[in-house]
Formats: sequence, structure tokens, C-alpha cells
Amino acid sequence: MNTTDAPAFFASRQTLDAEAYLEVEVTFECAGDPRVAAAHLCSEQSTAQWARVGVAEDFRPQFAARVLDLESTPLPHGFSVPVPEAPRGPVHRVRAILAHPWGNFGASLPGLISAVLGEGVYFTPGIPLVRVEDVRFPDTFLAHFQGPQFGVAGLRDRLKAFARPLFFGVIKPNIGLPPVPFAELGYAGWLGGLDIAKDDEMLTDVPWSPLAERAALLGEARQRAEQATGEPKIYLANITGEVDTLAARHDVAVQGGANAVMVNAMPVGVSAIRALRQHARVPIVSHFPLIAAFSRLPAHGVHSRVITRLQRLAGCDVIIMPGFGPRMMTPAHEVHDNLRACLEPMGHLRPSLPVPGGSDSAATLERVYRTIGHTDFGFVPGRGVFGHPMGPTAGARSLRQAWQAIADGVPLDERAAAQPELRAALDAFGAAS
Amino acid sequence: MNTTDAPAFFASRQTLDAEAYLEVEVTFECAGDPRVAAAHLCSEQSTAQWARVGVAEDFRPQFAARVLDLESTPLPHGFSVPVPEAPRGPVHRVRAILAHPWGNFGASLPGLISAVLGEGVYFTPGIPLVRVEDVRFPDTFLAHFQGPQFGVAGLRDRLKAFARPLFFGVIKPNIGLPPVPFAELGYAGWLGGLDIAKDDEMLTDVPWSPLAERAALLGEARQRAEQATGEPKIYLANITGEVDTLAARHDVAVQGGANAVMVNAMPVGVSAIRALRQHARVPIVSHFPLIAAFSRLPAHGVHSRVITRLQRLAGCDVIIMPGFGPRMMTPAHEVHDNLRACLEPMGHLRPSLPVPGGSDSAATLERVYRTIGHTDFGFVPGRGVFGHPMGPTAGARSLRQAWQAIADGVPLDERAAAQPELRAALDAFGAAS
Repeated sequence: MNTTDAPAFFASRQTLDAEAYLEVEVTFECAGDPRVAAAHLCSEQSTAQWARVGVAEDFRPQFAARVLDLESTPLPHGFSVPVPEAPRGPVHRVRAILAHPWGNFGASLPGLISAVLGEGVYFTPGIPLVRVEDVRFPDTFLAHFQGPQFGVAGLRDRLKAFARPLFFGVIKPNIGLPPVPFAELGYAGWLGGLDIAKDDEMLTDVPWSPLAERAALLGEARQRAEQATGEPKIYLANITGEVDTLAARHDVAVQGGANAVMVNAMPVGVSAIRALRQHARVPIVSHFPLIAAFSRLPAHGVHSRVITRLQRLAGCDVIIMPGFGPRMMTPAHEVHDNLRACLEPMGHLRPSLPVPGGSDSAATLERVYRTIGHTDFGFVPGRGVFGHPMGPTAGARSLRQAWQAIADGVPLDERAAAQPELRAALDAFGAAS
Repeated sequence: MNTTDAPAFFASRQTLDAEAYLEVEVTFECAGDPRVAAAHLCSEQSTAQWARVGVAEDFRPQFAARVLDLESTPLPHGFSVPVPEAPRGPVHRVRAILAHPWGNFGASLPGLISAVLGEGVYFTPGIPLVRVEDVRFPDTFLAHFQGPQFGVAGLRDRLKAFARPLFFGVIKPNIGLPPVPFAELGYAGWLGGLDIAKDDEMLTDVPWSPLAERAALLGEARQRAEQATGEPKIYLANITGEVDTLAARHDVAVQGGANAVMVNAMPVGVSAIRALRQHARVPIVSHFPLIAAFSRLPAHGVHSRVITRLQRLAGCDVIIMPGFGPRMMTPAHEVHDNLRACLEPMGHLRPSLPVPGGSDSAATLERVYRTIGHTDFGFVPGRGVFGHPMGPTAGARSLRQAWQAIADGVPLDERAAAQPELRAALDAFGAAS
């Protein structure tokens, strides 16, 4: 890339067909001319060589990614993070908006990841640090995707739970407990007021807790809990496994009595979720292993909302994500970005229910609710329900009590005077919140 | 986690059944007591709550991950990289070896990723920066995996190419060129001496280059090239796409005349590669989009060799990876780590051919070969063949000429006096190498 080749990688929005391009927002730190680096970034993720040798042709007009906008700031002290093998030269921090022609790969999630989060973006000369901050999709691209089958409204309809958060609980002990006592815990949680009792993301289909047996027992317990409480309940089975088994695991879980299935998004891959979406008869919930490996540091990697958008594209009805508070080491603005990515308009796609989680309990509910500012979220304690000093029924009840106090405008401490489950939750978990 | 709970997360190797555990090497930076942090790291990736409330039980003996070894060094200036929401306290850098009981999830790649690269490792209290450096597998775990179908020896047999690197070439222009001229370029490269002409990792199945048409044309060109040169050749078709289409894409490509298939490992997911491996009749080659998003920075993420090992487990016969030299911004020791992960003994699994790539040409071959120290690698120029000033046949020829000079112990510059293709390659690409 040189200053002669670079201009063909710049464009203004007005000259491009908006429906033919994704908009990719990136921040990067580069050595050398920021405009040349940005052009190179476009070239590397599209037409790295735009003509055959000896042929008068130029593939850039149709196939090049283009820089739409660029702001750069000198970093007089060099790269903000030490990078092995960093290039040399004057360093700038750059924010750029790129237009990426999605016809280069089509409406394919692996194609999208290969182009937009691929070799090109992370191996552009002069750019050792780069973070893909966001990707926005035109409606003609989105039209190829089913998106969530149920979405927030569908999930609420199933649970008959409106105008409040949905209460999930991760059954604990998460690893090691056989299906019979595991189902008893699920029942106890539902009885106290959980909407959804769920498997831990590490609990899969293993000899000490076979999925078929677990789903059958939890399914039976769920129906008992529905009769006892008069409320619809969900058992969320983790069907994470090799991708060619997901449809069969879905069937085993649903036949047993699970009425939602969970997959770990990065471990199975979002493409496998898109395939599962075509098969699924119940809501699909995704969980977040591995994502923080590339989303935590502001200087390099991928902003987590990009992966949230991919999960919504793939068809996740619920997206569990790192939530607020120091426990999850995620800045509040990033959690808000992810909440918006679930809920904001996205072509014809239904919203996904965001579930910002992490060591929650009745003691953290009000803070989370006030921070979010509305009720379209899931709340997912583990220990806050199943480690409650009075047991899981009391743990779940403490959540409902906390919510009722919030809805009534009564301070939790005041309400807790008459509600021992809430009192115990505030005492046990309040200091950590 | 407290100092009373922590000791149960420590063990010595002698007390554990080695076949029941993976060994996971991690480095991390923590605030607070490094031993408590390491215990917490084990808890979070296994039994986060190891007993029901009010039940005298302890799941740790069978299900806990354990610290086998730990070294810590104070970091008096705090975390080496600024982290949003970092915990407070005296900071240490720690290297630890953990034993992770794989019975917690079984011989499943998504299960493995969920446990070992999952929520737990990246959301351990006190540990905002952590890198999974390596994972080692016992033979009883490896016995569940097929691994590469052909491996290095099988690939060499197919190509009748022994005691030298295998010469790949990425056909360029990579994006935009229709199948007819694309096949002409492939033919030209094979004629000059490429073993394997390949699709770019971003070139998939798109209307302007349908996989079926491309594979048929390249298959026909390959057979002509085999007749013209008397050497077996491979057309490596990129079949990256939604995971439920991979088997069909494999069949389309192979029926057309492709005799190896490429998938982008992270975009499709290693589990999808494992499924493809059961179906494939030709070598599987993997490529490296996205990996650098979490492997570049030494302080946080995943060392790339972990993903290399997963690709070998999944059954990749060839693993394309970032290679040597400043262009790929990867330290030489990391490239060597990845080469070893492909080739070293790994239970019953065949070796995968490592292909360390990045802006290579006849001008970089000797350096790469000397650095590696043996011939069991693939060499994968793009522009070095297809951007050669005399065209792709000359570009490929320049690679073979360079290799012959190296094998003969003749300096390249000397040999180039009589070989204009080599001379042109050294002139065009030498400065960049």
C-alpha cells in the first residue's frame, strides 16, 4: 500500500449503495501514516491484490472495503500496550468507519467472521493493535437471517410474566451433582419463584449427569412446580456439545421436558446456533465462554457487542452476558452497549432478551434494575438462589420479594423486616453487591 | 474463596490419576493473595459451589480443578496493562499449572472450550488478566479423537513430494476474479511448480465465483497441470460456510475436482471441523481468522498453540498459521510453539503439517527454512507467486529454484544469475523480506 494506491480505498457514504455494505467501526493504533494504514486495513480485508500481473483491471470499485470516516490522534508515547514485534514509526490512535461489501462473502456467518474479524484486520502492516468496535448491517443482509424465533415477547408469553425482569437461576452445585438431587433443587427454586431453572454452562451431557435423565427428571419437576405455583416454568437444558449432535440433544432435552435449550456461543460457534435455530421448537439461550479473551482489553480484539449482534443474527432468544458491578470486570458502558444490541431495532429480527449476569442476588436486583432503567432483562443468580442460607426456595422467594418491594417503591431493608428470606439474602449477599 | 476453602484446590501430581486430568498452563496477574486467586481460578472452572446448603458433601475431591504448581512474582507497579474495572490490592504475576478433570465435560471440544477457556477462567475474582498458555491431554482423552486423516506423511504420499517443504500458493486477486481466469492462474502456478494452489480464506461460495463452477474448472486445470508436469497437484478449495453446509460443500468441491478442502477454524468452530473430519475423503486444511484477536497480547487471552492443538484434535491435516518475520507480528518463539504443537507426539494422532505464512516469496524461503530447521512445513506465498513480475508460472518457478539452490548449498544470489525468475523474485520481494 502506498499513497498512490490508498485513495481508491476511501469513499463517501453518498457514493455507495448502502444496502451493499456493512459498516464496520474500528479503533486501532498504528505506526506511520494513519490514512495509509486505514487503506491497508481495507485492502487486507477485501482485495489484497486487485489486478492480475499484466492485466489492466481493478477490482476495487466493486470489491474493496472503503474508509468512510477517520479520526486520528497522535500518541507521543507510542503504543498504549506493549506489543511483541510492534512496527516502528510515529504512533496514532485512530477511529475509523469502514464500508465492507458483504457481497464478497454473502449472508454467511463464517464468511462474515472471516472477512470482518479475520486475518486481514489483525495482520495489517503498521497496525499491531486493533479492535473491531461494532458492525451494522443493512436490511437486505438481515433479510437472509431468521433471528430469534420467540424473542422477548414470545418468552414472556410462554411464562405469562410481564412488566418485570425474568428470574433465572443456575442450579448449584453446578458440577458433580447427580440428576435426582439436581432436579430437587430445580423444583425448590421454581417453587420459590424462579421462572427459569437452568444448567450451568459447564454442565453438559456426562455419565454422572446424562442429559436424557436430567431433562426427564427436571421436566417432571417443572410440571409439578407449575401445578404447585400456577405459573408456567422453564427448564433450560444446556445442550452444548459437538455441533453435529446439537439437533439430537435438543430433541432429547425437549422430549424429556426441557422447554428451552442453552448453547455456549463461541464453543459451538454462532453458525451452529443458526443451524440449530432452524430445528429448534423451544427458545435458544446462549452463554458467553471465551468472549472475554478477546473483548476485555480496550486496545485490541473485538468489542463484545459484535458477538452479541452475531448471536441475535444466529437466532438466540436469550443472550447471557457479563453484567454490571466489579465482579464481572466489564465497564458499565459495555454492558449497556450489549443490552442495546439485544433490544434495539435490527431489520425484521425480534429482540433477544439480555441477561447481564454475575454473582447476583436479591441484594443486587435493585441496582441492576435502576442501572438498566426498564424491565426487559433476565436476572440470573446462582449462589444467590442455590447458596441462600435458608435454601433455594427461600433464595428464589427473596428475588420475588425484592422485586415486589422495588415495584411498590418500598426500601428493601424496610420490606425485609417482615420477610425473612429477603432479610437473609441481604445479610448473606449484601456486602458483596 | 477464602484461605480455609483454598487448600482443597491444590494437589500434587502423584496423588492424582494422570489419565483423568488435562494439564492447563496459565499465566495471570492478580490483586491479592496469589494462592487464593489460583484456588479461585480452579473453583470457577469446575465446582464453583461444591455442596448444597445444609448437606454435608464436598464435590471437590472428584470434580475440582487443582493447582499443581505455582510461581508468583510481585509487580510493584501494578497490572502490566491498563484494565477497566481492575480489582485492587498488591499485584502479582503468576504462572500456574492446573489439573482439570476432563470427566467434568467429556471428550467434547465445545465442552473443553467451555471449561478451560470459558467463563470461569476469565471471570475469576482478583484476576483481570489471564492467558491460557497451553493445554496437555492424557492419552485416554486423545483416544476419543480421530485426529488428522492423512497427516504429513499422507499428504506427502499424495503429492509424491518428499524431503522438501510443500509449496502452496494463494491465487490472487483473491476477491473478485471469476472462475475462468482464476483457474488459469491456478494452472499457471502449478505449471511453475506449486504443489497446492488454493483459494484465499475470504473466498467462499459466492455468485461471482460459485464453488461448484470454481472447483470444476480448477479440477480440470489441475489434471492438465499434472499431465504437463508429471507431478501430482492439489487444488485446495475453501469450503468455509455455515456449518450445516460443510459436508455438502465438501462433496461439491471434491466432485468438481478439488482434492483438499479448507475451512477457517474459528469462524466455523473446531467442533464443525471434527464433524467434517468424519465425512471428508480429502485432506482438511484450516486457516487462522480471528485467533490473533485473543492471542496477540502476552498478558491476556489464549496462546495460539492452544488453538493449534484443538485444530489437530479436530482432524486438520494442515494448519495454516501466522509465520515468521515482522509482517505477521508474531514472536518467533510463538511460531515455534505452534510448529511443535503440529508435529510433536500427541497420543495416536497423526501430525498436522504446519504452514507458517505471511508475505512469503522465493526471497524469504531460506530464512524460513533455516529458522524451522527441517522440511516438514508448507510455504504459502500469495503475491510472491501471483504478483511475481513475470507472472505466476515464473513466481512458482522461483520458489522451486530457491529451494534447489538451498538444497545444493548455493547462495541464492549466485544461482539467480542464470535463473531470471529467481532473480526477479529476489529483486521484487527481497527488500520486504
